[in-house]
Amino acid sequence: MNPLEVFQSLIGKEFSNSPSPFMRWLKPVVVSAEVGHLEFKYVVRQEWLNPMAILHGGITAGIIDDIIGATLISFNEINYYTTINNTIDYFSIAREGDIIIAETAIVKKGNQIVNVECIVWNEDKSRMIAKGQSNLMKIHPKK
Amino acid sequence: MNPLEVFQSLIGKEFSNSPSPFMRWLKPVVVSAEVGHLEFKYVVRQEWLNPMAILHGGITAGIIDDIIGATLISFNEINYYTTINNTIDYFSIAREGDIIIAETAIVKKGNQIVNVECIVWNEDKSRMIAKGQSNLMKIHPKK
Amino acid sequence: MNPLEVFQSLIGKEFSNSPSPFMRWLKPVVVSAEVGHLEFKYVVRQEWLNPMAILHGGITAGIIDDIIGATLISFNEINYYTTINNTIDYFSIAREGDIIIAETAIVKKGNQIVNVECIVWNEDKSRMIAKGQSNLMKIHPKK
Amino acid sequence: MNPLEVFQSLIGKEFSNSPSPFMRWLKPVVVSAEVGHLEFKYVVRQEWLNPMAILHGGITAGIIDDIIGATLISFNEINYYTTINNTIDYFSIAREGDIIIAETAIVKKGNQIVNVECIVWNEDKSRMIAKGQSNLMKIHPKK
Repeated sequence: MNPLEVFQSLIGKEFSNSPSPFMRWLKPVVVSAEVGHLEFKYVVRQEWLNPMAILHGGITAGIIDDIIGATLISFNEINYYTTINNTIDYFSIAREGDIIIAETAIVKKGNQIVNVECIVWNEDKSRMIAKGQSNLMKIHPKK
Repeated sequence: MNPLEVFQSLIGKEFSNSPSPFMRWLKPVVVSAEVGHLEFKYVVRQEWLNPMAILHGGITAGIIDDIIGATLISFNEINYYTTINNTIDYFSIAREGDIIIAETAIVKKGNQIVNVECIVWNEDKSRMIAKGQSNLMKIHPKK
Repeated sequence: MNPLEVFQSLIGKEFSNSPSPFMRWLKPVVVSAEVGHLEFKYVVRQEWLNPMAILHGGITAGIIDDIIGATLISFNEINYYTTINNTIDYFSIAREGDIIIAETAIVKKGNQIVNVECIVWNEDKSRMIAKGQSNLMKIHPKK
Repeated sequence: MNPLEVFQSLIGKEFSNSPSPFMRWLKPVVVSAEVGHLEFKYVVRQEWLNPMAILHGGITAGIIDDIIGATLISFNEINYYTTINNTIDYFSIAREGDIIIAETAIVKKGNQIVNVECIVWNEDKSRMIAKGQSNLMKIHPKK
C-alpha cells in the first residue's frame, strides 16, 4: 500500500502504527483521506489541558503541524518536505473528553513550496477552534 | 509566593507541580525567570519525534505556546490572557536526548494586547531551532 | 446609504470617493459587495513594480490590508476595528497592466476579534497571487 | 559600487534612483546600511492615510516588505530572493507629516531560506509602530 492507501485503510481506526512517535501519542482516528485532504479526530485528554482546564493551544498547534505534515505524505511522492513556517489563529475552546476534528486542504502546491491549511473543529464541525497554515519546502530524498 | 517567585524558586528544578497539565507533560526545568522573560530547558523525548527521528515541529510549537503563556503569568496580574494568534518560523533540528532551551521576551505590552516572542535554542544557545511570536488579549477575571 | 449600500452602488465603478486616501490611491473597482465579502479589482501600475518589473509584494500586502479593513465596514456597525496582525503567503506574480482581483471572506466573527481572509487572484481567478488573513479588534466609537 | 556601497553612499539622502519603482514612490532616506541591516526613514504622506487620518497598515506592510527585500540585496550576492511569506503585528500609530523609521535585521540566514525581521519605529525610535518578519527563498539567477 502507498501512504494514501494506508491512511484510507485506517478510516474509522486509530493510526496506532504511524511512523511518527508524536502522531502515535496524539492517537488520531482517521475520518477521511484523499490526496491533499485529511481528516483526523482526537479525544481531548487530561494532559492536553491548560491551567483553566481547557484544551492547551500548544496541543492544538501540535495537531495542526502533525496533520499538515501527514497531508504532504498523502501525495505519495518520493520527496520529503520540511516546514518553513506555521501561523495559527485561535477562535474557541474544547474541554477534556471532547472530540475534536482536524481537517486539511492544499491552498497552493508549487514546484518547491506547498501551502497547506488546517481547521480544527468541534465534533460536529459547527464551530472552529483554530485555523492554521504552513509553508513547506520540498527536500530531495537522500540517495 | 506570587507566580514570579514560584518560577524563581524553581530555578534549576523541574516545574513538576505546574497548574498546567500540558506543561507538566513537557517537564520543563526553569533556567531563569524575570518579569516578562522566562527561560526553560527540556530534554527531547522519543514521543516528541517525527518520522525522521528529529524533534517534531508540533512539539516545538507546543513548547512555544506554553512558555509564552507562562510569561504572561510572570507579570503577577489578576487578569487572564487568551492567545489570539501564533506564528512560528522553523530553522533547525534537534534529536532525541538533546537539551533545548526556550526563551521568551515581551515585544510590546499594550493595554489590551501583549505581543511576546519565543526563541527555541540548542543547549548552548549557539543555534536557533525556531522562533515564534503570539498576540494575547487580556481577559478580565471572573468575579 | 449605509456603507454596504455605498459599496453596492459602486459595482463596476472605481471607488474614487473612498474616505481612505490610500484606498483612493489604489483605485479599486468594486466587483461585488455583500456583508463580510468584498471583491475589488485593480490595474497593476508602473509604481507598483519591484526591480524585476513584477508586482511588488508590498503593494499586494497593502491591497490585502486595505480591502480587509473595508470588509469590516460592510457590517454597517458603529464600531471601529483596528488590525492586530496580518499574515500573507505569496504564490505567484503579476505584471504591469494586469488586472488583479482581491476577494475577502470572514473566517470567524467573535465578540471582540474578527478574523478575515483575502485572496489576491489573477483576472479570471484561475491563479492565486497571494493569500492573507488578519485579526482585527473592535474599538468602541468615541462619543 | 556594489549594492551595499550604493546604500552607504546614500546615507542622509533619498534613494531616488532605486531600481524598484515602488521603493522610489515610498521615497526612503537611507539612515544606515550594513550587511544584513538597513535603516530607512520616511515621511508619512496624505495618500498613506486610512479613513481615520492615521498611517494605513497597508503602507506599513508595503514599507516592511520593501526594505526586507532591500536587505537581501545588501549581501551583494548574485542570487535573487522571492518572498514566501510575511507576518506583521501592529502596535501603534503615526500621523501625516510624522517621520517613521524602518529597521531590519537578519534572524537566520540558511542555505535556501533567509528570515528577516523589520521594526517600524516613530522618529526617535522610542515607540514601535509595527514589527514584521519574512521568509525569503533563494532563486538562482537566470544565465
